[in-house]
Amino acid sequence: MKGKTVSVIGAGSCPPEVSARAERLGRLIAESGLDLVCGGLGGVMEAASRGAKAAGGRTLGILPGLDKRAANPFIDSAVVTGLGHMRNFLVIANGDAVIALEGGNGTLSEIGLALKSGKFVVAVGAWSGLPGVTPATGPEEAVDKIKQFLSNAG
Amino acid sequence: MKGKTVSVIGAGSCPPEVSARAERLGRLIAESGLDLVCGGLGGVMEAASRGAKAAGGRTLGILPGLDKRAANPFIDSAVVTGLGHMRNFLVIANGDAVIALEGGNGTLSEIGLALKSGKFVVAVGAWSGLPGVTPATGPEEAVDKIKQFLSNAG
Amino acid sequence: MKGKTVSVIGAGSCPPEVSARAERLGRLIAESGLDLVCGGLGGVMEAASRGAKAAGGRTLGILPGLDKRAANPFIDSAVVTGLGHMRNFLVIANGDAVIALEGGNGTLSEIGLALKSGKFVVAVGAWSGLPGVTPATGPEEAVDKIKQFLSNAG
Amino acid sequence: MKGKTVSVIGAGSCPPEVSARAERLGRLIAESGLDLVCGGLGGVMEAASRGAKAAGGRTLGILPGLDKRAANPFIDSAVVTGLGHMRNFLVIANGDAVIALEGGNGTLSEIGLALKSGKFVVAVGAWSGLPGVTPATGPEEAVDKIKQFLSNAG
Repeated sequence: MKGKTVSVIGAGSCPPEVSARAERLGRLIAESGLDLVCGGLGGVMEAASRGAKAAGGRTLGILPGLDKRAANPFIDSAVVTGLGHMRNFLVIANGDAVIALEGGNGTLSEIGLALKSGKFVVAVGAWSGLPGVTPATGPEEAVDKIKQFLSNAG
Repeated sequence: MKGKTVSVIGAGSCPPEVSARAERLGRLIAESGLDLVCGGLGGVMEAASRGAKAAGGRTLGILPGLDKRAANPFIDSAVVTGLGHMRNFLVIANGDAVIALEGGNGTLSEIGLALKSGKFVVAVGAWSGLPGVTPATGPEEAVDKIKQFLSNAG
Repeated sequence: MKGKTVSVIGAGSCPPEVSARAERLGRLIAESGLDLVCGGLGGVMEAASRGAKAAGGRTLGILPGLDKRAANPFIDSAVVTGLGHMRNFLVIANGDAVIALEGGNGTLSEIGLALKSGKFVVAVGAWSGLPGVTPATGPEEAVDKIKQFLSNAG
Repeated sequence: MKGKTVSVIGAGSCPPEVSARAERLGRLIAESGLDLVCGGLGGVMEAASRGAKAAGGRTLGILPGLDKRAANPFIDSAVVTGLGHMRNFLVIANGDAVIALEGGNGTLSEIGLALKSGKFVVAVGAWSGLPGVTPATGPEEAVDKIKQFLSNAG
């Protein structure tokens, strides 16, 4: 990706309500002119990618395995890694900022790596109370805070 | 390592009080006949390694960079990786169980990876309230819980 | 990438004559409807990317470091890795087939990884005599052989 | 490892004649006071490890997978990585010098990585004719050349 990029992290499977928020999140990211990076699989990753594509955005999916057909259908560029859980680091490293939407322990590891790498991290739901994380009440506030951060970062 | 192994994770620099607890932790691990794996650098990693060596234990240090001279002097086997923060995953993957002693965001990422990988994680201090983590009040209780887990795990 | 993809490997700096062949190679790849993956830096990687873009193709660059600005200007999607030399494996893993154009020891390591992974490898120049590699006299023959292989592979 | 270390690379399965040379190679490495690093599996790796242990040496095995029980029985310290073929890089990175004994494409990739990383590489058999590689007629000459190199390197 060459424009500003946001990593979206969250669970690989999720209930419809989280999926709906993820899709809205993806749409808002694309409408803000930002590219979306994610882990390329299902759940929050797929819903956010679907939202981004619906708004004409660009999506990059960084996969844990070596078969690019594992990517969800809304990924423009699927990158295979064979790194398993370590690919979480690449999802983070390829974003100029990070939004976590709910999520479990994989998401937690990504938040830790992001904070350790000095990234700006906004969380909606599950991990929004962690020290160092900027909380947001929903996709709208999350993207607003990301845009504000990126415009300040130049 | 060929025996049972405990990953010790925590900050790369720490106040004397944390260092004292880390050294006691390392000593208890070695006295329990367990090998110690860590990130090989300073702070909690160094103090725990010093404790383990003082009790005749074995230590494996998995380094982020490519120069093995970066290992603290209490590491028997230093392994260089060039993986940067991604080496955190190898620290976790090489333990049969994990003890976190205080620590910041790097430690948080390791806890997330450990839980995601299905590892048993005991935490003293900072991260002991995370869901999925077994809390301990200090090194003694932490090692007791690890020994109990490993004996049940066969 | 979602279409068929060719990894182009070769030296990070090269004389004008090699650069001209690399550019022709990139152009032929794009004209064949194939996406190009490379290491994203200079030399053969940059010239091939320039050729691909001149013919309206798509380019993915997998970088050794963590700064996407290191990508050459003809990369559509730059992926940072922080993996150093290990990123060579990702360059190979992301291609459905591989073309090596001249190159030194980095290229040699990529050819070894590609053959080990069961990839079809065509080499022009330097490494065309290695066992398991399909030799080609120049970009035209290399792309012809790749197209023939990919159409047989279904 | 803390002493000087030699990476031994070669095929994961090999005929008895190659195995015998690998064992002799491991023995000579240990008798020279050097530690042995390898990929931890069978074939040349196992035979060289057996030779090193028979002579009282130390062995480090860096495994492609996540199960340390995959290590051959002559490995003192088994390190799991989950890196697949990428673990080849760690085998190379952890040696102060490299000896290749026969071997196929995996070995070729390791030689390429070693030369790219500026390592001193001695090869017996298969790859001894590659540019940049120091050829040796057998284990004795290989270890002599390594010792000479390491003593010059200080």
